[in-house]
Amino acid sequence: MKLTILFGGASFEHEISIVSAITLKEKLGSFDLSFIFCDGDHQFYLIEADKMKATTFSKGAHKKMPLLTLSNGAFVQKSMFGSKEHTDLVLNLIHGGDGEDGTIAALLDFYSIKYIGPRKDACTFSFDKRFTKYLCEALGIKSVDYEVFYKNEQKNLNFSFPVIVKPATLGSSIGVSIVKDESGLDYAFDTAFEYDDVVIVEPFLEGVKEYNLAGFMANAEMHYSIVEEPQKEEFLDFEKKYMDFSRSERVREAELEVELVNKLKTNFEKVYRGLFEGALIRCDFFVVNSEVFLNEINPIPGSMANYLFEDFEASLTLLANDLPHRKRVGVSYEYIHSISQAKGK
Amino acid sequence: MKLTILFGGASFEHEISIVSAITLKEKLGSFDLSFIFCDGDHQFYLIEADKMKATTFSKGAHKKMPLLTLSNGAFVQKSMFGSKEHTDLVLNLIHGGDGEDGTIAALLDFYSIKYIGPRKDACTFSFDKRFTKYLCEALGIKSVDYEVFYKNEQKNLNFSFPVIVKPATLGSSIGVSIVKDESGLDYAFDTAFEYDDVVIVEPFLEGVKEYNLAGFMANAEMHYSIVEEPQKEEFLDFEKKYMDFSRSERVREAELEVELVNKLKTNFEKVYRGLFEGALIRCDFFVVNSEVFLNEINPIPGSMANYLFEDFEASLTLLANDLPHRKRVGVSYEYIHSISQAKGK
Repeated sequence: MKLTILFGGASFEHEISIVSAITLKEKLGSFDLSFIFCDGDHQFYLIEADKMKATTFSKGAHKKMPLLTLSNGAFVQKSMFGSKEHTDLVLNLIHGGDGEDGTIAALLDFYSIKYIGPRKDACTFSFDKRFTKYLCEALGIKSVDYEVFYKNEQKNLNFSFPVIVKPATLGSSIGVSIVKDESGLDYAFDTAFEYDDVVIVEPFLEGVKEYNLAGFMANAEMHYSIVEEPQKEEFLDFEKKYMDFSRSERVREAELEVELVNKLKTNFEKVYRGLFEGALIRCDFFVVNSEVFLNEINPIPGSMANYLFEDFEASLTLLANDLPHRKRVGVSYEYIHSISQAKGK
Repeated sequence: MKLTILFGGASFEHEISIVSAITLKEKLGSFDLSFIFCDGDHQFYLIEADKMKATTFSKGAHKKMPLLTLSNGAFVQKSMFGSKEHTDLVLNLIHGGDGEDGTIAALLDFYSIKYIGPRKDACTFSFDKRFTKYLCEALGIKSVDYEVFYKNEQKNLNFSFPVIVKPATLGSSIGVSIVKDESGLDYAFDTAFEYDDVVIVEPFLEGVKEYNLAGFMANAEMHYSIVEEPQKEEFLDFEKKYMDFSRSERVREAELEVELVNKLKTNFEKVYRGLFEGALIRCDFFVVNSEVFLNEINPIPGSMANYLFEDFEASLTLLANDLPHRKRVGVSYEYIHSISQAKGK
């Protein structure tokens, strides 16, 4: 299968997107891959496969590679001898801002470029933790209690400690703190507000089990990965997540009762249906007393959660062959024509 | 004030966006205006002010005008003699798809072009009627009961007739039907599903009062228009709405008790704050037994609801001078550098 991996982006997760792309290059060995890098200035570059090393980007060597621009149906490479169109199916692998906030989705939709990845509206609900809560409320999915705080507003917290303080829109634990008592609260707010104007606070639940499940819809059916119980630390800091994005070894399946696995899948499908079509996503759940809570939706998980799928290439191919397509509306001028005629013009 | 009106778009409301732009040209006489047209193929054209007539577009004469492309910070006009950048503040006046669904917002954000108009996430919540309901539920705003139906699904309606059947994402009453009894239901669903894969059904409330209120936030304060009681018909069909988009005469203020006006404003502010900053929006409310229900959010109202403002130019200037700006995240390579060093590369 021909596939273009689009990675980078002007985001705090720029580097982990590079790591993710390099990992996928190894995992998708039987695919005919090409690579498009979006740099911090929102310029697109075509990257040769053998230049797909982290240092290519950290040293700025990508700037010598062909520049691409967007046009109807393609990324276009212009040269003295004309222009070449790159029309392969795109995999949106830009983590964090740009990629997961819906910007790239809108751009690819506008230019009618086919892609694997979450659509614009799906991004709105997964990227901003406030809106994930709205989604849970509307769909009857349990999630942890929360309070929303805005920058420069007085902060009266109603929860008792410990609490977890998170910027509303950052991924990969950036700006997140666990606060054990009052004394640490101001600093945690300051840290979170450095990254975002909106901050979410939740009670920090001790002794919860965490389970991750990935999946997608193709041919009107859900397809799920195995369930993973991620490594148990308070939470992953950025450096650990960084390593996490380069995972390629399959993990051991969590030993769970069928009933619980089914509950996870039911919640996953509620989140997914009618919103995430076209994307392979990972939902991270908490389980407390056999009750399932949605913690987070990762609409572009690190290295596409390849390590959770038995046959990752087959799964991606299945998804690639059943992508939603946005109909381009044909414009008409019937009202203008009829009014012009009535006016005799 | 310098302002570029961006209009057109590949949408069912393409024509009314043209009408809206022509109307604003008249209303913003003291501004230094320019015009960019987005055609049905997503090409941008620079339109001379004296060519701003409906027939320019219906006859395809715009195709002879300068083509523009997007680049960092500007719409760019290329010619044999070099290129010219158009960097004026943009007013997003593309109604319906593209403009009100968040696509144009994402595009302008990606290319760092400043604009008046709803941001991407705000569009998600106002464009899809499902998500407007989610927003109301989350924020404690009353709205009419609803049921969601998906294409190709069995339809068991729980409401009694009459009901109103609407495509989830179309504006300007396109595809909307009022159904008085069972016999008209299938046809109404078929009509709505022609335009969208998701359909919303609500009880059709008789004898409700309708009130429209427009407003925006600038300098941390809400600024409101007068309240209008729109013309009372069952609902406006497309042709009537078309006329509605060319309104430029100020309307008479609805005679309401202060208490009710304040209720409308309180609900408006709940919708607006933390989501619609940067936009002048119009909220359409129902009032039943002094209770206020949100019916619809118009994030880009026809001709910007100019007819509701006492001094429309002053209002728009106020908003233009206090727009939210999306910080471009600076990318760093510290993890890649530290890992490369550890590896001795």
